[in-house]
Parts: sequence; structure tokens; C-alpha cells
Amino acid sequence: MGFGDEDLIKEGDFAIIYFPRKEIRYFRRVERKTISLHVGLLSWEGLIGRPYGEELRTRNGEPFYVFRPTPLDLAKNVIRQTQIIYPKDLAYISAKLGVRSGSRVIECGSGSGAATTFLASLVRPDGMVYSYEMNKSFLEIAMKNVERFGLSQWVRFKLGKAEDGFDEEGVDAVLLDMAEPWNALHSAYRSLRSGGILASILPTFGQVERMISSLTEMNFTSVEMEEILVRPYKPYPGRIRPDDRMVAHTGYLIFARKFIRKEDMGDEVPEAEHIGAEGDSWGDLNP
Amino acid sequence: MGFGDEDLIKEGDFAIIYFPRKEIRYFRRVERKTISLHVGLLSWEGLIGRPYGEELRTRNGEPFYVFRPTPLDLAKNVIRQTQIIYPKDLAYISAKLGVRSGSRVIECGSGSGAATTFLASLVRPDGMVYSYEMNKSFLEIAMKNVERFGLSQWVRFKLGKAEDGFDEEGVDAVLLDMAEPWNALHSAYRSLRSGGILASILPTFGQVERMISSLTEMNFTSVEMEEILVRPYKPYPGRIRPDDRMVAHTGYLIFARKFIRKEDMGDEVPEAEHIGAEGDSWGDLNP
Amino acid sequence: MGFGDEDLIKEGDFAIIYFPRKEIRYFRRVERKTISLHVGLLSWEGLIGRPYGEELRTRNGEPFYVFRPTPLDLAKNVIRQTQIIYPKDLAYISAKLGVRSGSRVIECGSGSGAATTFLASLVRPDGMVYSYEMNKSFLEIAMKNVERFGLSQWVRFKLGKAEDGFDEEGVDAVLLDMAEPWNALHSAYRSLRSGGILASILPTFGQVERMISSLTEMNFTSVEMEEILVRPYKPYPGRIRPDDRMVAHTGYLIFARKFIRKEDMGDEVPEAEHIGAEGDSWGDLNP
Amino acid sequence: MGFGDEDLIKEGDFAIIYFPRKEIRYFRRVERKTISLHVGLLSWEGLIGRPYGEELRTRNGEPFYVFRPTPLDLAKNVIRQTQIIYPKDLAYISAKLGVRSGSRVIECGSGSGAATTFLASLVRPDGMVYSYEMNKSFLEIAMKNVERFGLSQWVRFKLGKAEDGFDEEGVDAVLLDMAEPWNALHSAYRSLRSGGILASILPTFGQVERMISSLTEMNFTSVEMEEILVRPYKPYPGRIRPDDRMVAHTGYLIFARKFIRKEDMGDEVPEAEHIGAEGDSWGDLNP
Repeated sequence: MGFGDEDLIKEGDFAIIYFPRKEIRYFRRVERKTISLHVGLLSWEGLIGRPYGEELRTRNGEPFYVFRPTPLDLAKNVIRQTQIIYPKDLAYISAKLGVRSGSRVIECGSGSGAATTFLASLVRPDGMVYSYEMNKSFLEIAMKNVERFGLSQWVRFKLGKAEDGFDEEGVDAVLLDMAEPWNALHSAYRSLRSGGILASILPTFGQVERMISSLTEMNFTSVEMEEILVRPYKPYPGRIRPDDRMVAHTGYLIFARKFIRKEDMGDEVPEAEHIGAEGDSWGDLNP
Repeated sequence: MGFGDEDLIKEGDFAIIYFPRKEIRYFRRVERKTISLHVGLLSWEGLIGRPYGEELRTRNGEPFYVFRPTPLDLAKNVIRQTQIIYPKDLAYISAKLGVRSGSRVIECGSGSGAATTFLASLVRPDGMVYSYEMNKSFLEIAMKNVERFGLSQWVRFKLGKAEDGFDEEGVDAVLLDMAEPWNALHSAYRSLRSGGILASILPTFGQVERMISSLTEMNFTSVEMEEILVRPYKPYPGRIRPDDRMVAHTGYLIFARKFIRKEDMGDEVPEAEHIGAEGDSWGDLNP
Repeated sequence: MGFGDEDLIKEGDFAIIYFPRKEIRYFRRVERKTISLHVGLLSWEGLIGRPYGEELRTRNGEPFYVFRPTPLDLAKNVIRQTQIIYPKDLAYISAKLGVRSGSRVIECGSGSGAATTFLASLVRPDGMVYSYEMNKSFLEIAMKNVERFGLSQWVRFKLGKAEDGFDEEGVDAVLLDMAEPWNALHSAYRSLRSGGILASILPTFGQVERMISSLTEMNFTSVEMEEILVRPYKPYPGRIRPDDRMVAHTGYLIFARKFIRKEDMGDEVPEAEHIGAEGDSWGDLNP
Repeated sequence: MGFGDEDLIKEGDFAIIYFPRKEIRYFRRVERKTISLHVGLLSWEGLIGRPYGEELRTRNGEPFYVFRPTPLDLAKNVIRQTQIIYPKDLAYISAKLGVRSGSRVIECGSGSGAATTFLASLVRPDGMVYSYEMNKSFLEIAMKNVERFGLSQWVRFKLGKAEDGFDEEGVDAVLLDMAEPWNALHSAYRSLRSGGILASILPTFGQVERMISSLTEMNFTSVEMEEILVRPYKPYPGRIRPDDRMVAHTGYLIFARKFIRKEDMGDEVPEAEHIGAEGDSWGDLNP
């Protein structure tokens, strides 16, 4: 069993410390000092240079493990001043937006930088996240989080309101995580590439009604609305069962695609021929 | 409004054709021919070179749009001979496994290549998906799908059984999409890096019981079990409501981390000091 | 094993015929004739006078059983011309409304009489359901259903609109199963006893918003909104699992209590003394 | 507006005291004294003889209401020494069991008497609940709760184990609320009428597996397994949304019907004729 350099715990790493008997997970930065956890004191000094995933014990014999966090773990553990998008939603939104290596994505607003962190992890090494926030203190928190996680290279933070427009053009996707995303639709439209995808997350019926109407009135189509529920289970052999309680609501997810109206096509491309052949018939509509 | 080269519909692209009034989405390859859809005939000839996202109409005046698919769309639309992992699960599993640009991931089995497609999209440009399948005809389908989507560079397909072991070492994550994943745990353990993450998806109580017990007996810890439910809504202004029916079950998701026992650490690293200080106390356990 | 008179299948009974191997349930009336089911022909003649619950076989050897339906089964199997309230909702609504032997309940509208059937079953032998419907053909269907099930004694059907008022006073509960229940709130208020309970079921965001606002503006309080999801499982030994698909939405349930404003109390009862003692303090609010 | 005798708050009643601004509900017995609530002191003295549902205010001006509880409210508010069946499950189980005025029902075990309370409310005035409990202190609590609610006339409590058999014969329904209900199946079978319904509620995968297998091995059929999820919403005009958290699991509900095997029919009834006519054909199985 050989360990490479990146298998070893290093000063400055972020790590998950897992105590299996109590099912507690801590998210902490590795520093040459002793830290205080609810389960007792833990000295990083003796752990630096050891491999992740090793079976360890406290002085009292309590087993624990140190693991390297995933990008989703990082996002969940930002220092926060705002409500953050939950991992369950973040994973789904990113996938629906098609975010991947090389993507160019606008996010508004930055909040505490949780979504920024996750998106930045995905667009590496050639993509970019443009993250707008109108609240200066939030922006600073978000920047700090992204910097701590070593992701600054893939994020351009900007202080500003969505209504004033975004500087970028032709981006692949826009994520609107704000209370009144309908105010950002004009800006989002201008910055998205043709066919680009927009996502929004909204908690109340009223906000959803307004957003859906606004999308419909503007040049967005392929509107989808979904909700993600994660049901956690207790994985105890012989006593497996769902958890007694669960997160029942974070927000309704709304997705849409930008389209370009015939009349806005300009001269760059000639008008499309009719593409349906003679004798179009509308048959069975269960594709 | 300027269109770049990749904004334009090209021969060989895969595309989503969306008919908003019927809410139908087709997934088709762009070829210089006329294709037959349930809604009528559609001639690609006139569309090649035009931008994605343009508002188009059939000869009958029916509006439609052509969009570029996301990796999740590709995964959902593989040619299939097997049940595939649903997009909702695929997005969450990938995020929980920490798959991103540069990741090295083992998948077993390949099935029709849906998960392979999505994972390959994420690991670009420097990562790799090692995809094992014991059924030759499935493997061929999976390879064909991955090739069609231009992702072969990021996948190594292998014909073989999990029980015979995987060739790779130190991979970041293993996804077991098979009926009896407990049979693959020894192989998965050997191939995972220390602290690496394993995921499995299983539909029945009995399989879950067996898998949870097997993980607990082997050197896996941090076992989590979750279920993802996506609730779709009808996004009609003034009449927003959940869909009448939904997918209620695909599978239970199980995640775990590989750990290394004290006695298996070997001589490479010295034994860990006790890391809890004197006077460990167990206090409030709500971290 | 002795069988009482009511254990035996009688002409005129309604019965459930259950074919276990196909998991099919038929709801049929017992008549001295041969009926055609998808699984073949079935002759009631040989079954009349035999006990419910007996293990039977068709001529082809296919096992089946005949069971006596519950009130919920009756409600689910009304002859219908309208959407009916689902059993899951009906059971919960009745319980929340406190409907039991002796209750007096107004229902508006009757629809096909499904809820009427279930409520009538519960209020026996001394209660009464007052069922209003403005559509004459629906009313006739509902009456026919209730009569077939022998429950007419516990229902008074009335042709009329909620806006014109209900004839009854001091009823225990009101169930509004109509598209615009806010139009019925004045009438419901007048007919409910003080503290009486109102229920409504509505499918869309917009209807819910309007109903909640209307209740709040009128003299209703203790407003509760809930949604019931029933998740069915396949109970196959060794292969237990949730069904692949489920009913994801029927309607949002809204409950409220009528209250009487101070200024409407009249002279019948003297004004209430202040009931909080000196030095009221607001402490911990987690009762 | 006239108030009848039963509209008025009486000494000895159980009542719900609802504080709308804090959304707090208390369940208390009406006694001629001052009681202490988290929101302050409340004197019943001034409230006795006043109507339920009146708008009241504390000395500090805090509005509140007093409502008469429903049977479901009573069940939810038993003095408890055990986990009780949740209202959502109780309402559905009762309806599935077909419990109504006149029903004869066996319940095992009594627990704290919550289900007993609800069932007793429904079987009035001519039915009966037979409630078995092997733990004497639980039985005493259950009896006390049922007595407080004035329902003793409709319950016969019995100290005893299910394995020793139930005294009754030909009951309509049996509810098994115990950890190992498979041990009670023989007794339940003997006491149920032919075709009678059995219900059970179980929290873990392992218990469900065992119960389903046991039912299948014995003479029970028409096995159904379901789960009830109640999703609560915040009914605030303009800000309607699901609650952040919900109860995610109480138990899996299992229902089955007793049947009588051919060989156990005895001489009382002659053997059933084959009831499928010549030419049985198995056609389309979507009834």
C-alpha cells in the first residue's frame, strides 16, 4: 500500500473529521495546533503527514477518521452570513445547467459563496464563474470562502446589482439565487448564449408565480419546475429505517432556456426555411 | 448579437428539439436528412448552420426550438439495453463522489453507458473513467454510446467481473451499479485510495440490508444512505401545481468511505500518537 | 368456525373480487348472473350464500377471493362523472373535521358522491350529511351512488349554489370541494357552529393563495395547510420496494376554525373578563 | 346567534387553547383554577360558560381562542409513556380497517391508549374496541386516558400477551401495534371474521421483511404496504411555502385480509362450484 503526496494530511488542507460511534462530522482546517471539538481536544500536530482514511483513536480510545472533503463538502461548509443553497439542490442545479470543465457561468448573488465554490470546482481548469453580489459584506465573505478553498482562479467576483447588467456575453448558464430574480431576467438574457440555460431557486408560492409569469413574458422557453427531496436513512444493519425527520423544503427549482425571436435574428443569418415537410401530421404524442 | 462557431447547429451534433405547445422534447442526431417525429417531418438540411435557440416554425406554423444537450441530457438519452441510473440520482451520486475535472473513477457495471457518459463529461480534460462490465453485449452498447458522444478519450472500457478485481489503484471513487454489489467490495477496496468514496444504488430492502451489512463488516465507514425524490411541477402561469404522478422509486443510494485499519498500515508510516489530549470530555453532541 | 348471516355473500351486496396472482381488484355488485371480467367470466350464482373470505378458484384454477368492501372502498368506487377526492385525502379530512357517529356535516359540492358516501358511513346512526351541488346531473349521480350503497338515510341532497347559503345552522363541520371555495365562505360561516371546522382541497398555487387570503380576511382562524402523500410499496417477500411510480398530487388540504368576533357576540353572553392574570410573561415558546 | 348547551365551555371538558400570533396550541382540561402556560397565566374561571370559538384576549391583549378537540386531537394528546401512532397514520389505518359506528375491533398493544381513543370514538354507540396490553403500567395509562376522555364504555382493556390468544371471535378488524406482530398472527387469525382486515405499523426494513413473509406463509392475502407522508405548509398570505422540516418517518403500514382455505371450510358450507364459465380467457389485465 503506497501513499502519494496527495494522500497525506497537509497543513492548510481542509478536512472532515468523522467520529463513527456518535456519527459526528467536523469540518476543520489543518493547522499546527490543538483544537477543541465537542468530543474532546484534538491535536493536528500528530496527524500532519499521515494518510487520509487511517483508523485513528483519541487518547480515550474513541475511534475517528480524517477524510478529504469533496467540492460538495466545501460548499456545505462555507463560513456563512446568508442562507446557502443545499447540497441536494446544488448538485441537481449544476447538472441541469450543464456546468462542467470549461463552462462560463454567471451567478447572482454570491451570498456566502457556497454555490460559487461548487461551480468553481466544476469549471476547472479552463472555465470561469462570474459571481455578482450587491451586498458588500456578503461579497467579502464569499470571496474569503472561495480564497480559503483555493478556487479564486476560477471566480471573478463583482459588486453590483443584476438590474445594472452583467459584463459578460455568451455565457453558458446563469444561476439566479436572489429573492426577486425576475428583476434580473433582462440582464440574464443579454448575457446568455442563444439556447443557454437559466436556473433559479425560490421558496414561496408567490415568488414562483411571479417568476414563471416573467419567464413566459420574456424570451425564455422550455420552462421546467422541480423540487428535490432527499430522504435520509439510518444505515444500521438489522434496523435500517428512514430518519425520523427530514428537510422538507429549501426551494422550488426553476429552469428555462433563452431563445431568440425571429425578428431579433438580425442579418447575420438568413431567415430559416420552413422545416416541416409537406403533409405534417400530428399523430400520437407519447414520444 | 454575434454567434460563435459553437453556437451553430452542425452535422453530427446531438440536439434537443423542443415543441413548447405539446411540451415534447426529442433527442436526435443532426444529419443531412429529413426525419420523422410524431409531430410531423423535420428536415435537418435547412437547420444546419443556424444558431441553437432560434425560434423556428414548422410548415404548419408549429413553433419549436433546437437546443444543445447538457451532459445530463446525453446520459438520459443513451441507446439502452438496460435500466439506467436516473438523472436525479446521477447528479447527486457524482457530487457525493466528488467527481470533477481530473478525477479517476471506477464504474461497475457499465450497463448502457449512461453513468459513464455523465462521469466522462465531468472528469475532462485530465481524468479518466474505468468502466467494467461482464456482459459483452452491454459493454458494446456502452462503448457505442460513449463514442457517439465523443467521450471515448475519457473512458477505458473493460470486459470483466468485479470479483476478479479492477486493474487500477488509488482511484478517487468507485460507483457500483450492479445487483449484488457486495461481491465487488473487495475489489473496490483494493482499488480505492485511502479515504476514497464508494457509491451504490439498490432498489430493494433485501439488497440494501445485505449491502449495509457487508460494508460494515469490511473496512468501509461513514456509511450514508439516502433517497432522492424529484417532484415535477406544471409551470403554467396561474395554474402552477405538482404533476399528478411522479417517479416514486429508482433506488436507495448508499455511500461509504474506505479506511485503513491500524494493523494494515505497514511500515511506511509510523504508528499514530494518541491525538486526544488529557481530560477528553464528551460534551454536547450537536455540532 | 361459524358464519353469521352477515358473513355470507348476498344478492345486492357490493363486493371486492381479488385475484392475487395478478393483483387485480374488481368492485362489483352481487347479482344472480354471470359477469365478464378481464380475467374471464365469473358466475355469481354459485357464490351467493357462501362466506366472504373463502379461497376460491376459477374453472381454470386461478385463485381468487371475495371480500366485503369498507366505506373507503365504496367511496373509491362510486360511478363517477367528476374527479373524486382520493381515499388518502378523504380519510385525513374526515379525521381532521372530527366527523364521527352523530356529526352534522355540510358538504359542497356533492360531485359524484364519493366524499358523501364516506362521511355518511361515519355519521351513522344519528348524524347527517347535507350535500349541496349546483350541477343537476352531478347531483343525480351522487344521489344514485349513495342510494346504491344504502346510505340515503344519512344524506340530504340539495340542488343549489354555495353563494345562496346553506339551510342548516350549527353544523359541526363543512367540507368545500369546489374550484372557488372562497365564494362559499360566507355561507359556511353562517352554518358552522362557533369553533366549527372547515376543510377545503385545492390543486393549484393560485387557488391556495386566494383561499388562504380569504380565510384570513374572514372570521376563520387556526388555518392549517397540509398535503398527504401515500407511497405504495410492493410487498413481495425478499424483494420489498417502493412502487416505481406514485400519485404525486391530488390537492392541498386547508383547514380552519370559525371564530366569533367580540363585537358579534351579542347580549346573550356578557363580555369576557380579561383572563390573563397580572404579570403575564412571555417565556419559552416551545410548548 | 344562539348557543346550545354543547357550544359552551364546561368544567371537565378537554379544550384546545390556540394563540394565533405565536401559532401555539395547548391541550388542557377545563378546571376552576388558574393555569400556567408558556405565554402567561390563564384563568379558566372566567371562561366556563362562555362559547367555544369566541375571540378572547389575555390581560396583555394577546388574542386567543378556545376550541373543542376532535377525536384525533384527543388521541394526539394522551398522557404518554410510549411512542404513539401519529394522527396521519391513525386516520388512514382506521379508514383502511373500515372502522365505523358498530365495528368490533381488537387492538394489540394498547400502548398509551392513543389509537384506542380514536377507535373508540369511531365505533360509538354500538361497537367495541378490545385492547390488549402485556405491560401492566402501559395498560393503566391507556385505561386512564380512555377514562378521562369519557370513552370507557366502548373499550374493554385486557392484560395479556397476543400469543396467548384473544378472547373475541368474529371481529371486523385487528390492529397490531407491537414490535413483533408476527407473533400475534395466529391469535389475530382466530379472532378475525372471514375476510376481516388486519393492520400493522412497523418502522424498520427488517421488521417489514419478517411481517410480510409471515403474512404470506399464513392465511392472509391482499397484502398491501403503504407509507403516509404529511407535508405541512406555512399558510401565510403572500408567503405560502412548505415547512422547512417535516416528520419523515413513523412507520410502514401493512394491511392484509384473512381468508379461509378450502380444506378448513368444514361441513357447514358445501364446496364451491367452479365459478369460471367455460372458455375462460385471460385478456387485457388493465382493469
